[in-house]
Amino acid sequence: MERIVLMYIDELKFDDNGLIPAIVQDYKTKEILMMAYMNRESLEKSLETKETYFFSRSRQCLWHKGETSGNIQHIKSIKYDCDGDTILIEVEADGPACHTGNRSCFYRSILDLSEDENKSILDNLYRRIE
Amino acid sequence: MERIVLMYIDELKFDDNGLIPAIVQDYKTKEILMMAYMNRESLEKSLETKETYFFSRSRQCLWHKGETSGNIQHIKSIKYDCDGDTILIEVEADGPACHTGNRSCFYRSILDLSEDENKSILDNLYRRIE
Repeated sequence: MERIVLMYIDELKFDDNGLIPAIVQDYKTKEILMMAYMNRESLEKSLETKETYFFSRSRQCLWHKGETSGNIQHIKSIKYDCDGDTILIEVEADGPACHTGNRSCFYRSILDLSEDENKSILDNLYRRIE
Repeated sequence: MERIVLMYIDELKFDDNGLIPAIVQDYKTKEILMMAYMNRESLEKSLETKETYFFSRSRQCLWHKGETSGNIQHIKSIKYDCDGDTILIEVEADGPACHTGNRSCFYRSILDLSEDENKSILDNLYRRIE
């Protein structure tokens, strides 16, 4: 691997389990697809292949996203934050990120004020029409 | 707090330290602004005030984003992922998310193929013009 890239990896802060959270975002729509964890090996493998590799905390092994489902994530960019303890990966995905078949793993809401806003805009429109 | 919201919080998986990672995204541009951690108290406070509260791991206390800088994040939506172990918050921010003054904490790249792509598109254009 190129020396400059290895230098970047050395700047990252992996936690006590050797992991760093990686946010995966669709590089075109900017939708957040999922969040998973990487260890140094999976990050190096991702940089090498330009496809996402994570470390599965439940199975305690390297996990090539899409290996069984076919929904490979092709990496467009990898950024890291000011603290160096989180990674952001932009991808072009061959299919849904979520095992439920949803494009994104974030398909459930606790709170949605944007909908309320849209609803109130619609309500206002209806009132004007009436 | 409403019963239905408390039910949602009960579905979330806080880690051994009582924390859950929260990704913060600009609700208009979809840019990822930062990632921080919430405990149950900070999530409840966020839901109550519609402003982001986190748990500072370094200072071990509740942290109201923007309290000192003025860069309050107004919550538009809160989603959670299929595993219930990550939160995604869409906000309208009064100012930069990062303490460095950058709009986003993710201002450094390890890899950027999108730039290469744009560069090669430009290179092709130049070649055609020549």
